Amino acid sequence: MKILVLNAGSSSHKCCLYKIEELFPDAPPAPLWEAQLDWHRPDNAALLVRTAAGEKLEEELLSVSRADALLHLLMTLWQGRTQVIQNLQEIDVVGHRVVHGGQKYQASVVTDEVKDEIASLIPLAPTHNEANLEGIEIIEELLGNVPQIAVFDTAFHSRIPDIAATYPGPYNWIEQDIRRYGFHGISHQYCTQRTAQILGREVERLIVCHLGNGASLTAVKSGRSINTTMGYTPLDGLMMGTRSGAVDPGILIHLMRQGYSADQLDQMLNKESGLKGISGISHDMREIDDAIAQGNKQAKLARDLYLHRLQSCLGSMLMSLGGIDVIVFTAGIGEHSAGVRAEICNALAFLGLKIDAAKNNSDPVDQDIATTESSVRVLVIHTQEDWAIAQDCWRCLTSYPSQVHQVLSL
Amino acid sequence: MKILVLNAGSSSHKCCLYKIEELFPDAPPAPLWEAQLDWHRPDNAALLVRTAAGEKLEEELLSVSRADALLHLLMTLWQGRTQVIQNLQEIDVVGHRVVHGGQKYQASVVTDEVKDEIASLIPLAPTHNEANLEGIEIIEELLGNVPQIAVFDTAFHSRIPDIAATYPGPYNWIEQDIRRYGFHGISHQYCTQRTAQILGREVERLIVCHLGNGASLTAVKSGRSINTTMGYTPLDGLMMGTRSGAVDPGILIHLMRQGYSADQLDQMLNKESGLKGISGISHDMREIDDAIAQGNKQAKLARDLYLHRLQSCLGSMLMSLGGIDVIVFTAGIGEHSAGVRAEICNALAFLGLKIDAAKNNSDPVDQDIATTESSVRVLVIHTQEDWAIAQDCWRCLTSYPSQVHQVLSL
Repeated sequence: MKILVLNAGSSSHKCCLYKIEELFPDAPPAPLWEAQLDWHRPDNAALLVRTAAGEKLEEELLSVSRADALLHLLMTLWQGRTQVIQNLQEIDVVGHRVVHGGQKYQASVVTDEVKDEIASLIPLAPTHNEANLEGIEIIEELLGNVPQIAVFDTAFHSRIPDIAATYPGPYNWIEQDIRRYGFHGISHQYCTQRTAQILGREVERLIVCHLGNGASLTAVKSGRSINTTMGYTPLDGLMMGTRSGAVDPGILIHLMRQGYSADQLDQMLNKESGLKGISGISHDMREIDDAIAQGNKQAKLARDLYLHRLQSCLGSMLMSLGGIDVIVFTAGIGEHSAGVRAEICNALAFLGLKIDAAKNNSDPVDQDIATTESSVRVLVIHTQEDWAIAQDCWRCLTSYPSQVHQVLSL
Repeated sequence: MKILVLNAGSSSHKCCLYKIEELFPDAPPAPLWEAQLDWHRPDNAALLVRTAAGEKLEEELLSVSRADALLHLLMTLWQGRTQVIQNLQEIDVVGHRVVHGGQKYQASVVTDEVKDEIASLIPLAPTHNEANLEGIEIIEELLGNVPQIAVFDTAFHSRIPDIAATYPGPYNWIEQDIRRYGFHGISHQYCTQRTAQILGREVERLIVCHLGNGASLTAVKSGRSINTTMGYTPLDGLMMGTRSGAVDPGILIHLMRQGYSADQLDQMLNKESGLKGISGISHDMREIDDAIAQGNKQAKLARDLYLHRLQSCLGSMLMSLGGIDVIVFTAGIGEHSAGVRAEICNALAFLGLKIDAAKNNSDPVDQDIATTESSVRVLVIHTQEDWAIAQDCWRCLTSYPSQVHQVLSL
């Protein structure tokens, strides 16, 4: 089965083509073709295309609309040096990462109803859901009635218990759908399944630490998300690259009285806080570490604070699970900062967790870095959201083929 | 030494007179005299006075100013049936609970400078600090140059490490003194000292749960506060009687865009949230429990959510300490809800904590309710803020008598 995956961000658009033969190969396969658009200005993007066969294409697209640029990107699938298919009919299904699915339960075949729902959630994830919808419509024009599957970043958390989903505000927040949705669900779910695959067993009490530029933790009990640190918006929870994470709501009320508007607070807390805000240098932990090596005190405070907030939120997840059997580190910092992993594991040493320093420092990928006597297993997993989306497409098409057919013939 | 203690709240004013002979008697002594004003309207208060000898006075004060009412209250000290002293000169020192002391370090002899500081912090604790200052000025008029001591509710937290004090916003928040101050410090400190006294040893890793109408946790390491759940304002942290505690800051930004003003959000999050907001019934856990017994689902959600948020914040304190040796429950819910204590202790069972159900259900006061084999001691302590203030006054006068004299002779 050939599966095209579209993953639209606020300033980039990633696509890849997988050929999938089994749902759980020993290791996730490399895509046949992958392409990325990075928008530098509203009408000016860089295009980069790579194939498994080693072909590469770099191009600047000037004065183009988002739709035209995406079309141009997709055409490299069957044209020129980067061509990996003969014609569009070879694509069996197209999967889309959709950031906000509200309380929508699982990956869904795209229907008009699903599109309306994605559109209705645009206010909650403005840049993302709009780009996702655009991608779906471009594929409709280009590929006609190929099945499209929407895979929601909120889906994994959609059945967390009411006590974790509800905010302790006025009761009418519940009626207004002001609740904890959680995000990074595709990554958290992928890591949950990959953990079971690596360890060869279901895990009862698992904490997944997705530590990228955005960051969140999920408490996973026997395969199900029961709590997570992001909330109504991706601003809740951990300190991140440029986001503050959770802060005293009284601070916002204080700043409002100083004259700050909603847009200014949004900008401050989402773009000018976190590692970047405290260090004054960068949102990137690698640059923070370089500055610390040169004696920069703000950078040191930023890193220490990042770890403190991470420990604090880990404690919340720990209490939700009533203990911990496995901890997973994933995404940029989780996969590549041996220092952050070591410090977090040390903070959990009182529970009997011990990491193997040599394994931790060996750039581990999909590997257990705890010592044999450790009471908690510690995995570093390379998160692969696009592959997880491809897996969900496979599941939809193989589990419910008649349903997919029925939807498409409507 | 006779010590008069004034404890001013937003709608009440409590005073008591202690006769203190030693700093750490086996049990805190009862005050010789205690009096309370409850304001029903701005110029209408109920006065209740009780003495250790069993005399009682109840009075309605109509059309009075706050200053006149306080003066009337204080006069019952040496006049009428409730008289406990012959003249004002018997009062050696007056202690005031001051809610917000900024980063001020400890109990301070009241000088003009200290009064200026309390005044400068009025914006951060509007109703409280203003009432505190008023109390100090009334005593000045009434008692002339008796030593007055300001005991700050923030003092116990004033030296928490930078990582716990700093919010991960923009760096300039630090320059604007937007930091974690923490509150309930007098209670947390009292419980810390009382714990050492009851167990006969210093505790390394202690968590104090002050669960009143306002509620906060403090992580105490070897006698020092190293983290606490309240922050820049008393709105941070736990779900409380009418306060939400911490919520996704993105929710406030969303509500601002819906048109809510700072005052409206302040009112919503401080007065219409928490147990009251979710249950729709009451801020009082006893009334919530009654409603649950009658099958009320909102009340059940409110209680479950309260416990969930409490567990979540406990996890943060646990991580700050790297484990736990003793947990203390204090204040209204902490002292009187055996159910809440049992559920929180069950959530900590994975650490080897075991409570003795019979002891827990026996209305324990200043008592250890853990089983002998429990890895964590569990104390229920009757918090006595006024007695703690009297102790601080004693310390100030006996440790630095010349300093006090010097200040008073300025």
